[in-house]
This record gives sequence, C-alpha cells and structure tokens, in this order.
Amino acid sequence: MNPLKSFASDNNSGAHPRIFQALERANRGSAPAYGADPWTDEAAEAVEQAFGGRARAWFVFTGTAANVLGLQCMLRPHQGLFCTDTAHVHCDECGAPEAVTGSKLILLPSHDGKVRTADMERPLTMRESVHSSYPRVLSIAQATECGTVYTLDELREISAYCRKNGLYLHMDGARLSNAAARLGVSLKQITADAGVDALSFGGTKNGLLAGEAVVFLNPDLGGEFEYARKQHMQLGSKMRFVAAQFTEYLRDELWRENALAANSMAALLAGEVRGMDHVRIAHPVEVNAIFARLHKDAIAELRKEFYFYTLEQFDAPGYPKDWRMVRWMTSFNTTEEQVREFAAAIRGVAHIG
Amino acid sequence: MNPLKSFASDNNSGAHPRIFQALERANRGSAPAYGADPWTDEAAEAVEQAFGGRARAWFVFTGTAANVLGLQCMLRPHQGLFCTDTAHVHCDECGAPEAVTGSKLILLPSHDGKVRTADMERPLTMRESVHSSYPRVLSIAQATECGTVYTLDELREISAYCRKNGLYLHMDGARLSNAAARLGVSLKQITADAGVDALSFGGTKNGLLAGEAVVFLNPDLGGEFEYARKQHMQLGSKMRFVAAQFTEYLRDELWRENALAANSMAALLAGEVRGMDHVRIAHPVEVNAIFARLHKDAIAELRKEFYFYTLEQFDAPGYPKDWRMVRWMTSFNTTEEQVREFAAAIRGVAHIG
Amino acid sequence: MNPLKSFASDNNSGAHPRIFQALERANRGSAPAYGADPWTDEAAEAVEQAFGGRARAWFVFTGTAANVLGLQCMLRPHQGLFCTDTAHVHCDECGAPEAVTGSKLILLPSHDGKVRTADMERPLTMRESVHSSYPRVLSIAQATECGTVYTLDELREISAYCRKNGLYLHMDGARLSNAAARLGVSLKQITADAGVDALSFGGTKNGLLAGEAVVFLNPDLGGEFEYARKQHMQLGSKMRFVAAQFTEYLRDELWRENALAANSMAALLAGEVRGMDHVRIAHPVEVNAIFARLHKDAIAELRKEFYFYTLEQFDAPGYPKDWRMVRWMTSFNTTEEQVREFAAAIRGVAHIG
Amino acid sequence: MNPLKSFASDNNSGAHPRIFQALERANRGSAPAYGADPWTDEAAEAVEQAFGGRARAWFVFTGTAANVLGLQCMLRPHQGLFCTDTAHVHCDECGAPEAVTGSKLILLPSHDGKVRTADMERPLTMRESVHSSYPRVLSIAQATECGTVYTLDELREISAYCRKNGLYLHMDGARLSNAAARLGVSLKQITADAGVDALSFGGTKNGLLAGEAVVFLNPDLGGEFEYARKQHMQLGSKMRFVAAQFTEYLRDELWRENALAANSMAALLAGEVRGMDHVRIAHPVEVNAIFARLHKDAIAELRKEFYFYTLEQFDAPGYPKDWRMVRWMTSFNTTEEQVREFAAAIRGVAHIG
Repeated sequence: MNPLKSFASDNNSGAHPRIFQALERANRGSAPAYGADPWTDEAAEAVEQAFGGRARAWFVFTGTAANVLGLQCMLRPHQGLFCTDTAHVHCDECGAPEAVTGSKLILLPSHDGKVRTADMERPLTMRESVHSSYPRVLSIAQATECGTVYTLDELREISAYCRKNGLYLHMDGARLSNAAARLGVSLKQITADAGVDALSFGGTKNGLLAGEAVVFLNPDLGGEFEYARKQHMQLGSKMRFVAAQFTEYLRDELWRENALAANSMAALLAGEVRGMDHVRIAHPVEVNAIFARLHKDAIAELRKEFYFYTLEQFDAPGYPKDWRMVRWMTSFNTTEEQVREFAAAIRGVAHIG
Repeated sequence: MNPLKSFASDNNSGAHPRIFQALERANRGSAPAYGADPWTDEAAEAVEQAFGGRARAWFVFTGTAANVLGLQCMLRPHQGLFCTDTAHVHCDECGAPEAVTGSKLILLPSHDGKVRTADMERPLTMRESVHSSYPRVLSIAQATECGTVYTLDELREISAYCRKNGLYLHMDGARLSNAAARLGVSLKQITADAGVDALSFGGTKNGLLAGEAVVFLNPDLGGEFEYARKQHMQLGSKMRFVAAQFTEYLRDELWRENALAANSMAALLAGEVRGMDHVRIAHPVEVNAIFARLHKDAIAELRKEFYFYTLEQFDAPGYPKDWRMVRWMTSFNTTEEQVREFAAAIRGVAHIG
Repeated sequence: MNPLKSFASDNNSGAHPRIFQALERANRGSAPAYGADPWTDEAAEAVEQAFGGRARAWFVFTGTAANVLGLQCMLRPHQGLFCTDTAHVHCDECGAPEAVTGSKLILLPSHDGKVRTADMERPLTMRESVHSSYPRVLSIAQATECGTVYTLDELREISAYCRKNGLYLHMDGARLSNAAARLGVSLKQITADAGVDALSFGGTKNGLLAGEAVVFLNPDLGGEFEYARKQHMQLGSKMRFVAAQFTEYLRDELWRENALAANSMAALLAGEVRGMDHVRIAHPVEVNAIFARLHKDAIAELRKEFYFYTLEQFDAPGYPKDWRMVRWMTSFNTTEEQVREFAAAIRGVAHIG
Repeated sequence: MNPLKSFASDNNSGAHPRIFQALERANRGSAPAYGADPWTDEAAEAVEQAFGGRARAWFVFTGTAANVLGLQCMLRPHQGLFCTDTAHVHCDECGAPEAVTGSKLILLPSHDGKVRTADMERPLTMRESVHSSYPRVLSIAQATECGTVYTLDELREISAYCRKNGLYLHMDGARLSNAAARLGVSLKQITADAGVDALSFGGTKNGLLAGEAVVFLNPDLGGEFEYARKQHMQLGSKMRFVAAQFTEYLRDELWRENALAANSMAALLAGEVRGMDHVRIAHPVEVNAIFARLHKDAIAELRKEFYFYTLEQFDAPGYPKDWRMVRWMTSFNTTEEQVREFAAAIRGVAHIG
C-alpha cells in the first residue's frame, strides 16, 4: 500500500499553493493574538459576505470542532439531536457531540446519506414526556457522508419541516464546497436561502492546510460561540494563520475551483468503473466520493498498491458474503493520470467475484 | 496603539522562518490523515527522545488543549486539581478544565507564580470525606505565569512531595523552552529527571505557527490520550503540518535558540527599566516577561504607541491607588532595537507617578 | 381515567406495610448522617450477603441514578455502552447516561427485550479506530423492558461473550426480584453466579417507598462509587431511611413474596386475555407486564375507567393501522378482584377491531 | 462518642411525627408516578403560595441536588458562579456544581459566611474577555454556613447589586426556615420580596424524612427544570412521598415551629458557653449553629461522649496552635435537658487551654 497513491480521503492531500502563499503573507510582523487581528477580521467578513448579510462566522481547527461547537450553541443537555445513522457526528467523532453537549443523538435511517422528514414524525412524539430527550436540532450533511447532494428543493422541504416543528437545522458542510459546485449554486443559496440555521463550512478537505468555519445564519444563535470555542480549546493564539487561509479560499471562489476539480475526477473514475463486471457502485456519485462493492480478494489485490478504506460496517445484508464496501475519494489535486492508473488497476481485478 | 510594536505576548509574533520551511517540505504529496503519516511518527519520536526514553508524545493545536487533555488523563471527575490562583489553567482557560474534566480546581497561593508544598497540607486533609473533591494532581507552570522559573531543586522537592502524597505532578510547559534555556538544562532534566508525570510542551509561544505537544513521562498515564484528543476535537486530519513544525523545533535545539533570544531581550529591557523613578518590577525577571507597576497615566501614554496588557486583577492591596500592573513580554524575534525604543519610551513617562 | 384503577406501572403502588414499619423503627433517636449510621451498615450487609461474598452495595434514591452511577464507574467518556433500542437507559432516562458519563450508547436490536451476542460482532470492530467510541460495557435489563426474563443459560452465554471480548456486564435490575421469582432462583444465582459485574437492584417498583441499590460484584469496580454518588447528588443525609427499607425487603425474602404476587396477577390477566378476539399479546408474559395490541377505539374505551400506557413508539410496521400497543402492569398489591374486573372490561371492548 | 448525643448536625435527627403521619396518609391507594399525582400538585401549590404568586416549585431528594439543579437552570457552562469560600456549594458538594453545570466557581471572601458586594467588583471586570468564565450568578446561603443570617436590608442591597450587574441571585436555603424564624418574617419576605431569583428550600435539616424544594421566583427561569431534574436522576417514581412531606411542613407553619425550637436551643447553649474560660465563639449565633474554638484536648475529652465535628480547615492563622474550631448544632427536637447536659460537659473541660 502506497500512501502516495491515495484514494482514501480528500484530507490525504496537502494544502493548495495559493493557501500556502496566503500563510506566508500573514506571517509578516506582529499581530494581536486570539483573533483580534486584521487577518481574522478580513476573513470573517469574507465568509459572512459569502453566506449573506446576516451570517456570523468564526474559525476553528477541526471539522469535528466545527460541528460540535455549532451544535453546542443550539442545544441544552436535555435536548436531542436528529441525524442519520451514517452521519459523521454519529459515526466518526468518538462521541464528541454527547461528551461536549451532554445531548442524545436520535438516529434516523439514511437514504443514500439523506434524511427523510417523515422519519422524524414518531420520534417527535417523545416531546410529550421528560423521560425522553427533547428533539431540538436536525443535523444534515451536505454533501452527505454517502457522497450524495441534497437538491435545493429537498433542503427547502426539510427546513420548512424544521421550522414547523421547532427544530433548528444544522448543516455539516465539511464538503459544502463540493455540493455547491455540483449544484452550480452559491454558498448563500445552498444555506441561508434554503433555511439553514447554522453550519460548518469545511476547508481542510478542499485544499486548506487546516481550518474550518462555523457560520450562524439565524441571528438568535451564536451569541455564546466565542466562549464555547475558548472553553472547548479551539481558540488559537495565532488565529491569523487559520483566518488567512479562508480569505484566500473565498477569493475568486478558490473553494469552487478546487471542488469542481475533485468532483470531476470522481465522475471520471465512476465512468470508468461503471461498466466493470464485478464492481457495484452503491450510491449516486454526486461529488468526490465513490462507494462501491467488490470481492474482498479484489480489494486486497488493489490495496497492495493503492490506499483507500474498506467500510465493513456498511456491508448490506443480502449482499454476496465475500464482497465488501469500499470508498474511493478524489481531491482538489487528483490528476486525470492518477485516476486512469487507478481505473486500470480496478479493471485488472474486476474479474474476481 | 500599534500592534506591530507589541510587547503584549510572545504569541503576537509570527512563525520562525525555519518552521515555515518545514511546513513547505511537509506539503509534498499525499499522506494518510489523522496522524498516521511519517511526519507525525518522526516528530513524536523526536519529542520522545528529547524527554527521555519513557516519554510518549502527541500533538494538539492549542495550549489550553494541551493542558486540559493532559489533565483529563490524570483525573476522574470527583478528583481535584491543585494549582496557584495565578495559574493559566485557572485564570485563562474559560473554565475549560472544569467543563472538560468535571473536576474542581483547588487554589493555592502564588509565590511569584510558584507553589509551596506546605500550602497543600491542609487541603489534603479534605481527602477524608466524600463531600470534598479528592486532590489527585498538582499542576505547576514552568516557566510560571509570573515569569519566574522553578529551579531543579525546587522541582525535585515538589515531585517528592507529590509522590509521597499520592499526587500526580503535571507541568504546564507553555514556556518550558524559556525555562530550560534560563537554567541551561535539557528538556529531560527539567521534566523526566525532576519527577514530572505529564506535561504540555509549548511551541506556539516560541516560534511555531501553531502546535503544542502533550508528553506523558509516567508510563501509567496516557493510555487513553488518543481517544480523549479525538473526543475533544483536537485530532486534525492533516496532522503532519503540526508534527513537521515540532521536528524542526527540536532539530539543533531551535527551541533553545528562540528561547534564549526572547529571554535575553527581556533581560535587556529589565536592565533598562530597573533604574527608573516610578517603575517597580514586581517579580524576578527570569524568562521573557516583565511584570511592572507604574502610574496609570504613564501606562496610557505608553499605550498610545505600544501594545501590551494592563493586568487590573493583579493590583496588590496597599499599592498606590493609581498605579497598575503591566506585563511586557519579548519574543523569539524581538530585536535589540525594538527593546531600546520601548525602553526610551518608558523612560519618557517614568516621571509620572 | 381513574388513577386508583391503575395498570400503568408497578410504581403506581404505595409502599408495603412492612416497609412502613421499618421506617418507623429507623426514626428513633439521632444517628450520624450520610450513611455513617448502623441502619445503613446493616442494610448494606444484608444486600451483600444476598448477592454473595464479594458484593459491595450502596443505596440511591432512583432507578435512573442506580443505573447511571453504576455505569459511571465502568466507563470513561470515550468508551461506549451497548444496550437494546428498547432499554430503559436509552428510552426513559432523558439522556442521563450520555450527560453524566459522557459516553455514547451503541444500540442493539431488541429480541423481545433481549440482546443477542451476535449483534455485537460488527460494532466491536469499531474498536480499531479512535474515531468511534470504544465499546466497554454491555447493559442488559433483567427482567427486560418487554416483560421477558433471561434464563440462567442465556445469562451465562452473554457473560462469557463479554469476558471474552473485554466488556463489562451491567444489569439493570429494576425488576430483578420479578425475574428471580419467575426463575425460582436466588439473587446471587441470577447475578454473581451468572457473571454479572455490576447491577442495579430495584426496590421502588416492588413495594419500597423509595430506594434502589447499586451492587458491584466485580471487585475491580466500584472503588470510586461513593464519590460519584455524592457528586451526582444521591447521597442523602438521612440515608438510614433508604437503608432501613432494604433490610426489611431482604428479611424473609419480602422481595420474592412481593414479586411472586405481582407476577401471578399478570399471569392471571394474560390467561384471561389470551382467548379474546381482537387482542394480541406481543411478548411472552414472564413477569408482571403484559404488552398487547388492540384497536385504538378499544383502548380509548378502556381508558375511560382504567389507567395504563399506550406505547405509540412500539407500533410494529405491518400491523393493522388503527391498532396500538399497550402495557398492562401488575404490582405487589394488585388483587385478584382488580384483575378480574379489568379483564371483564377488556372483554367488553374486544369485539372492536 | 455516642451518636445518640449528637450536636453534629440538624440532619442527625429523624423525621417529625407529623411528617410521618403525612407519609402514611399518602400511602393510600394507587397514584400516577413521577409527580403526576394529586399530592404533588397540592404540595407544589402550597410552596408556591408560601413564596408568592409567581413562584414555581419542584421537589428533589437532596440539598446538593436542589442547589445544583437550580443553578443548572441559571448557567451555561462558560458562565461562572460567585459564592463565598465557605459556601456549601464550594466546600461540601464534591464538585457537583462544576461536574454537572460545567461552570467555574468564583470564590469571594466570607465575612461570617456572608458576601460583600464590593468583593465582586474586580472579578466582574473578567467579563471583558472570553479567556475567563463570565460571572452570571451569585449564590448566597440563608442562613449562612457560619450560622449567621442576612438581614432584609442586606438582601435588598445584594439583590439590587445583582440586578444592576446582570447577575442572577440564587439562595441556598437549606436552613431558610431557621433564617426566617430568626428574622420573624415570612418565606416570601425573605426571598421573593428581597429580590431572589431562585432558591433551594430545605426540608431535611428541619424535620423532614427527605425532601428539598427548588423554587424559581424569576419567571424567566426554570422552564427547563423538569428535564434537568429527570436527566440528573432526581425524579422519583413515588414522588408523592416527597411532596406529602412538604404539604405538612407548610401547614400551620410547621417549618417555623421546628426552626424556632432549634434556634432557641442554640441560643440557650451559646448563653451557657459564653462565659466559659477557654471557649471562644467564632461567629454571631443567629440560628441553630455555634462555631467555637477551644483546645484540642478539651475537644477530645468532650468527644468521648458527644458527637460533633471539628473543622480543621477553618482554623484561623494567628490562633493558639493547639486550638481547633468546632461546630455545635441543634435540631428541631433537641431538648433543653440535652443542651444543659452538653453545656455542663463543656464547662467540665473549659479549663483546658
């Protein structure tokens, strides 16, 4: 397995050259610490403009922090949080939402990574009793953890349901750029205009060195965020180095350029793979991830050279016993040559099964 | 107030050029995420070697995180933590230790920032009852928040007391480099050899872009650290960029070079100031901080041009009513010219009082 | 709806006369507070004897506290807890396990309220990564929330699986007496001898005024329980009044007498109901609860006079649309006359459907 | 040491006979669980009437729970809580306020157990920075832990200060009855009329078997209390047995009768002791506690027969080295005979010193 030939995750890439140059520019001279510097002001303003006039934005170091601290401002410990059973906040954050907020996660079935509002009907009846956590937030991922994208119509239907039912709508936008690029819309259209209350706007998976933004669109929320961020250890002293990345990320929509590049490489790979004998693509390929099932011996063979994840926990009942689910992911700097090399390798094992 | 003329904190500086170059080197190619990359292995090994064979090290983004997550591995919620009433963990972390660990901080009087073991005698009798938190850890800062340094003898006396009384010894080493530079000793001598169980090894205040290490010296501790780090949102996906800074920081003892530079500039400034009429230095100047009292009008005048903190909460009873405490801090890249300019400005207001 | 005609829960009953007399005896004279009194010593010893020589027991006020504080001594926040999706710790404690311990609940499917070990296989693979909570405890209820009872063989199989897989076995014994009575075994046989590590031993649902015991059978556990109990606000000053109830509860096995009475009344009711046209019993009736489905109009009619719960959340897919699940529960002091009156009323509505 | 001869605490007594009779009355028939019963309605209404029309009251099992859950409804984790360094919430709750609310306690000096508003001036300046917890609540005890009582004027001055400074005023009224009895005022005058926002109204220390009330006077507060109580494990299923005690406690002001009895016995004891050679009373004796200093040999002699606490942690600097602080406390059922016997015993050792 060669980590340099990684289709494991978009976070296996380094930082985009323009991001590096922005860091260099930010390294000139002294500046007040803890975000009281001009770089941070500039970056927050850039994010806020991108998400519309009422947005308020702050920066943190990790995607888990962006999600959990956003949620922490929307929940009291006795309140619960809806999410799918494939959600990053449930599967991949080591229980951070529970440990930090004290709240319960209330799991909904995943439909290719998406929530259906009808699935909340019954759990919402739990509100009648203090013996159950009181559902207060729905958190959805855009793009989803299955590599799919909510359409604007789907988002509007979900946000209307939330408003009607006294639920805040939170969006895990670790790959929001990929979703907006897919839909060909602005960041504002996919969030503020669609009724989202608060979100994580990811950077690290799309070419930043390290940096995520928490954005509140509902003006009732976020008043305590700066305290929550400090108390949960995400206020860096040299915050300008996170902020400066975001200013560059938004300049001329670098975020979209990177996301389009990643998305197109995934589309290319999916096109190559789709015809193969013993490979089954599991979800619609709408951004930069391909979920596929193939025989475990084929996987083992492929992993001798390429680096990617096998997702045992996603194996569907009824599937051939020795087949496994894999995730192949492209990044802002994945090249066509890399994709073609990988596709050829897959073709080379696709007879196994 | 000109932020470029900052004597506010060593974290007002940017990153050292060598640190930047290390980041650039780490940006080549893909690498596994979340610390499973060769840069992280190399850096952890470098830290572990610097602190002695039994050390185990991990990286986080902020100093508060380094302190709190280290402590989290040493405490159960019903157990208490000794620290001085001037400690960073008490004064400057927005209650993170309480919120994250659930534990109580048990305050000891500060003697120029230092702990005296005799002050723990009475609180230790609280152990007889479940109605009080059970003291389990002593956390000291080296260098202290008052800019003083524990001698090796003082450390040994404290660690012997801790061992005898069933207390773990934790060290907040946000400025450990400055302390080791002051004493002319190695990182190992000042920690492992002195009986410290776990520590935060700071980088950001001494020339890193962003990075702190948590180091466990007692092999009974730290087994759960990686989970705690993930759950408390400090596991970055592109961890190599934190790690690579540390490798460079330890190479040829860049940490010491930077710390000696900062310390010597503070000594220079203290020397200039010491003779002045209406300026009183408050604590021994042993690293890169000067605490001084002067008249508030003199402070106001100085702050028109220079940037530094006034510490109202430290005003001692009995001091002239209109005098205030200030902190002047130097950094790895503070120049002699900057110090002389600042000293001249202080001299210009030192008649007020 | 007449609350006096309650088949809603065994906790709708008052206290058994012998329990009241024990309280009166404990009310003589002064005694040290917070459990340092002779009544508490006597009661703890009685519980410990009942559960075998290695048991250690403490008292708390509520069943939720018994569960959560027992679990708190078995878990670190990054560790997870297996339980069924019908478990009291998941459905009926308002997220107390998450809020107090910081841990994640990992849900298993319920088979008539019971766990199957095979269902833990896949989630246990989550242990390979710090991104997921580390499963550390399995909590089962005996009797289950569905009114079924694990046989001794089933318990032994489960505890062997737990031992093999590094899981502690916790038992929610809110109705342990009913289970032991059903199986005709001792409290020790059903817990210590079956490999249980820690448990809640319920009193309130079986004739106590208010009182639950937390019992640790694994000597590695419970060392910090007294602190956890105090910190989580369950250490009463006049603890003798909880303790004295338990001494009486264990004297001549009052617990079994009460449980047999409740169980037999449920059996009587189930026998009456079983032949009826439009009533379907949902789980085996093994202790003092009957889960049944019938038409919602029949339920509405019955609830005009009798008090019991409708459990909307348990409606199974595929069932007639207008049928609902109900729970009918008997208590230590339910009379045969009450059961026959209720059965006649059910018969009176059983034509609806 | 004979526990039957206890001057250790008012919680060493059992329950008042009228309280017992109330429990017996509440034990008739079935009733809905978890506080949905007529006894609970009646008791809540009785408490609410006693504290004025806007009061809302709920019941819990312990005094620590009453304090902490009241505070939990007034604080977010990043907010801090003022209290004296002798406060029960700081000294005697094993860190429950920190562990449950996540908040920091900000200690003020105790003046015979009382707060002086001037002492909050400096800590309130911490509000300017996210690095410090944001002070949001002042918690005072009435009567104080030193056995003193705030006058109505003192309370009004404190509540005016709190209102002006955006602080909620919380009152730990574990011994509120003793304070109201001392001042000869109603429960409403000493709380709602004096500007208190929320309080704990103690029962257990004044003749109840077990029971405390949390009372919110500020209508902005308490909306989430019932969830907090359930999540923190204080919602008993047979809640009627706590509630029924309170109804009786308020009937014909049984609380005042009990408190007056306890207070008068302390006054009697203080009068006897005041003339003695080597006994020094430490605080004004205003309710049912006497704090005194005497020689440790005298204490040892006394403790051969009588049961009371020595408070090593309260030894004042400058006091004779071998003298210790003790607390002698009377209860609702302490008799004049018991007091005279104890006074005689003290006199018998008062030559030591």
